[in-house]
Amino acid sequence: MIRLKSLCIAALLAGCASTPHETLTQISTINALLAGAYDGQMRCDELLKQGDFGIGTFDRLDGEMVVCDGTVYQVRSDGKVYTPSPETTTPFAAVTCFDPEQQITISSGADFDAVEKIVDQAAPQKNLFCAIRIDGSFRKMKTRSVPAQNKPYPPLVEVAKHQPVFEYENISGTIIGFRCPQYIEGLNIPGYHLHFLSADKTKGGHILAFEIANAEARIDIANRLTMILPRDTAALADVELGADRSHELEAVEK
Amino acid sequence: MIRLKSLCIAALLAGCASTPHETLTQISTINALLAGAYDGQMRCDELLKQGDFGIGTFDRLDGEMVVCDGTVYQVRSDGKVYTPSPETTTPFAAVTCFDPEQQITISSGADFDAVEKIVDQAAPQKNLFCAIRIDGSFRKMKTRSVPAQNKPYPPLVEVAKHQPVFEYENISGTIIGFRCPQYIEGLNIPGYHLHFLSADKTKGGHILAFEIANAEARIDIANRLTMILPRDTAALADVELGADRSHELEAVEK
Repeated sequence: MIRLKSLCIAALLAGCASTPHETLTQISTINALLAGAYDGQMRCDELLKQGDFGIGTFDRLDGEMVVCDGTVYQVRSDGKVYTPSPETTTPFAAVTCFDPEQQITISSGADFDAVEKIVDQAAPQKNLFCAIRIDGSFRKMKTRSVPAQNKPYPPLVEVAKHQPVFEYENISGTIIGFRCPQYIEGLNIPGYHLHFLSADKTKGGHILAFEIANAEARIDIANRLTMILPRDTAALADVELGADRSHELEAVEK
Repeated sequence: MIRLKSLCIAALLAGCASTPHETLTQISTINALLAGAYDGQMRCDELLKQGDFGIGTFDRLDGEMVVCDGTVYQVRSDGKVYTPSPETTTPFAAVTCFDPEQQITISSGADFDAVEKIVDQAAPQKNLFCAIRIDGSFRKMKTRSVPAQNKPYPPLVEVAKHQPVFEYENISGTIIGFRCPQYIEGLNIPGYHLHFLSADKTKGGHILAFEIANAEARIDIANRLTMILPRDTAALADVELGADRSHELEAVEK
């Protein structure tokens, strides 16, 4: 009976205790975001039930999201980091219950390309999803954030033309993100998509470039994808989710 | 305490009692199947934990799967219906916990095209997933099944050239299947994909054409997709899941 009770309590608990691990859960699709579907669809406290680790953005595109150790951080376009209320919503995010299987020491001087090669070698399963966390110190870190938008929302490719960019030197912190398979184009971002949060939780953003001083990478392979679309029929009613937006995505990400 | 206990028992139960509803769960991807990845990845008893309703195929492409009211049926290439053992595996399937929101009477004479129009009108959310169940009597029902394959597996488009076709008249039974959004191309089958099971559970298959005598359709909209890929790195290692196989799919489905 005691055993049943503890099992029961575990099963009823919210969050990573009850969510199937090895699952990447995403809210909406990247094509919806590229098309300007910036209205928040899921609350941050609900998002945390799907995972304790991840990246995304906020209602009205109000900054870059970093989910680190079960806390949601908001890097706004002023370059500062906020802790949003549980009611704050996200129109697009990807999270997982981070449960790494590998740890790799990254050599000094490694940049974005070098880290991609290292992770590809450690995790050659290109058809699966890969969560990446890198803790350490960085000689250089270049990030960007996005400013909150007003309706009628412009497409993301327009917003990205006016995004503030931040450059830091000799900064400690954590890189959090995913490698998604190529075939996921249109639903999520194929290849690497990484965000940054400084160790003192005051700086961060969507990573454009970096150079490592010394760092440890941890990798968690996920073989499940859960995609949660807004049930509200109006939310994505006018969005042509099947359009080829790969050129827009390239313009936005780089 | 009694209340907690019943909650606990519900939470611990396998299958639709504990699976989030409004979720389409699929095993592997249609592109993997088109490429010849016919090795079973999930057991039927595990599949039933993801849903009580759905369609798919079996290890080695050994027939068409119909999951109806929590039972898995196997329509083999001999045209007969079998009940596979719980250990039988599937390389590709899609299931949901069927929980219909709408019921529609389908008028006599309606064919595949007419039913598509009726369901599209009742469920205009083209970006979401739609489970469709039609119970009734059919003036005509034309199905096909697929024969079990041996390694090295030929691609599905080759197998489809030699598939047995079955034509029935004045037959009662159930149509089970899904409408998937266009943007899901490569992962699942965009548009309608329907299988049939006769009321006496002796006939069935992948539906090519039908004409309704009288029938009731029930519709269940799902706003979540869960895709479960084989964790085994060898299983899909050589499969280029991102290739455009839409022409192959058309040849196979029609």
